[in-house]
Amino acid sequence: MNQDTLNPSALRYGAPITLDEARHVAQAAHDEAARQDWPMAIAIVDSGGHLVLLHRLDNTQLGSIEVARQKAETAVRFKRPTKRFEDALTEGGLHWRLLGMTNLTPLDGGIPLVRDGAVIGAIGISGMQSHQDAQVAQAGADALR
Amino acid sequence: MNQDTLNPSALRYGAPITLDEARHVAQAAHDEAARQDWPMAIAIVDSGGHLVLLHRLDNTQLGSIEVARQKAETAVRFKRPTKRFEDALTEGGLHWRLLGMTNLTPLDGGIPLVRDGAVIGAIGISGMQSHQDAQVAQAGADALR
Amino acid sequence: MNQDTLNPSALRYGAPITLDEARHVAQAAHDEAARQDWPMAIAIVDSGGHLVLLHRLDNTQLGSIEVARQKAETAVRFKRPTKRFEDALTEGGLHWRLLGMTNLTPLDGGIPLVRDGAVIGAIGISGMQSHQDAQVAQAGADALR
Amino acid sequence: MNQDTLNPSALRYGAPITLDEARHVAQAAHDEAARQDWPMAIAIVDSGGHLVLLHRLDNTQLGSIEVARQKAETAVRFKRPTKRFEDALTEGGLHWRLLGMTNLTPLDGGIPLVRDGAVIGAIGISGMQSHQDAQVAQAGADALR
Repeated sequence: MNQDTLNPSALRYGAPITLDEARHVAQAAHDEAARQDWPMAIAIVDSGGHLVLLHRLDNTQLGSIEVARQKAETAVRFKRPTKRFEDALTEGGLHWRLLGMTNLTPLDGGIPLVRDGAVIGAIGISGMQSHQDAQVAQAGADALR
Repeated sequence: MNQDTLNPSALRYGAPITLDEARHVAQAAHDEAARQDWPMAIAIVDSGGHLVLLHRLDNTQLGSIEVARQKAETAVRFKRPTKRFEDALTEGGLHWRLLGMTNLTPLDGGIPLVRDGAVIGAIGISGMQSHQDAQVAQAGADALR
Repeated sequence: MNQDTLNPSALRYGAPITLDEARHVAQAAHDEAARQDWPMAIAIVDSGGHLVLLHRLDNTQLGSIEVARQKAETAVRFKRPTKRFEDALTEGGLHWRLLGMTNLTPLDGGIPLVRDGAVIGAIGISGMQSHQDAQVAQAGADALR
Repeated sequence: MNQDTLNPSALRYGAPITLDEARHVAQAAHDEAARQDWPMAIAIVDSGGHLVLLHRLDNTQLGSIEVARQKAETAVRFKRPTKRFEDALTEGGLHWRLLGMTNLTPLDGGIPLVRDGAVIGAIGISGMQSHQDAQVAQAGADALR
């Protein structure tokens, strides 16, 4: 699934990701975070946006627990990577209206987990700069295939 | 009722929209959404801003449930289409202060339902781009006359 | 599905109920409410606990909007009719601990919608006494078969 | 550490449990849950009450995500097993006041994780009856030694 070309309105919601799959995805993200020596929170939610797994690496800032979860929720709620919203804010203008939305976290680092055209969940990472969070989230998402 | 010339301060709040009327409005919006093949959430609130009807079409992004409701609430709370707030953000400057308001969703797609000079409710649509949401909301509002 | 013998831990979560199915269930509940002349809110959530449909009959008390939704959410969250929790409170003693739970509404009137051993959603009714709410919820649930 | 004789006021708060330790504790709980074929949510918080790990087994009722977390939080917040509060409610009388506390979940299944006289975190389990939840939480806590 190429995250950059993903078309939200064409995506269905599928069955929820299993814990085994979530652990596999989380481990890939964890490995990438460890390789970079980045303290991070890893959250994986199912296709209803509900937590299946959360791992917080040692010394990760406490605020990242909630942010990681919210990024994953946002990716499921809007069936797209949270980077889309971050990019929109960078463009500015009308896009600032996104800041008026209460159920959307516009920070890179949340990526839908998609299989056979259906969202089965999402991964959200927080702890470093958002492009670094996204690098680790992508490492997790890539492990699903 | 021409939404573009609606003058909020001259509007009264009327009796609440009935469920029958809300279903009629929602069906017109639903038909337009189906015609365009757009997955959307349709929310109709009464003159107190309270939900009378919510319909979520299949595969609509989950986040739109809350956004549709908030757009309709905003349209009732401020007796004007939410597009007014979106346009204000586009102008920028002092208008940015709108983002500091917690009971206002500044996205196009929320339209008051007005009869005989009184707000009887509002319709809020979410699921696609905001001008598309507004197109469907307008189809619903037009059905009220 | 006999609600009285439903075993929560053996139930899976299935795909979300469709809007067409939800409308069918809601209409059956609506018909029963109208037959009794009971003002009520009807909420139907999907297998993730998210609203698919809400209809509020005219003159229903405003508080019932939220209560109907919470009953449906509770029935999905715990895969059982909310009557189980109401009955437990009636027994008293240790069961009072249920009142310490923040994501559980212990009032009759919420019933899971089950198909092929899987929860596809739930219906929640509020507006009258809880056994009357439950009568209407059951009429809705019965229409799913 | 014998949970039954634990004296809250003599306990200090220690350094937070590490993710490695949390995973070890969670695995022991997971193994016990799998042995019993019980769908459950496993939450482990640190000495500040913040999530370090959450694992939800497949088909666990959604409401247990929040309940497991709250049980673990309660066990850290009050430096005692949540069973103490459940038992107090069973006694009744003045103990009913516990239900008026908003940061306390009075259900068995939350156990502090203690090392060298210091609370380093807690485990909370939800999904079955509370004594079964507690059995699995204890299996996790026992793995810490």
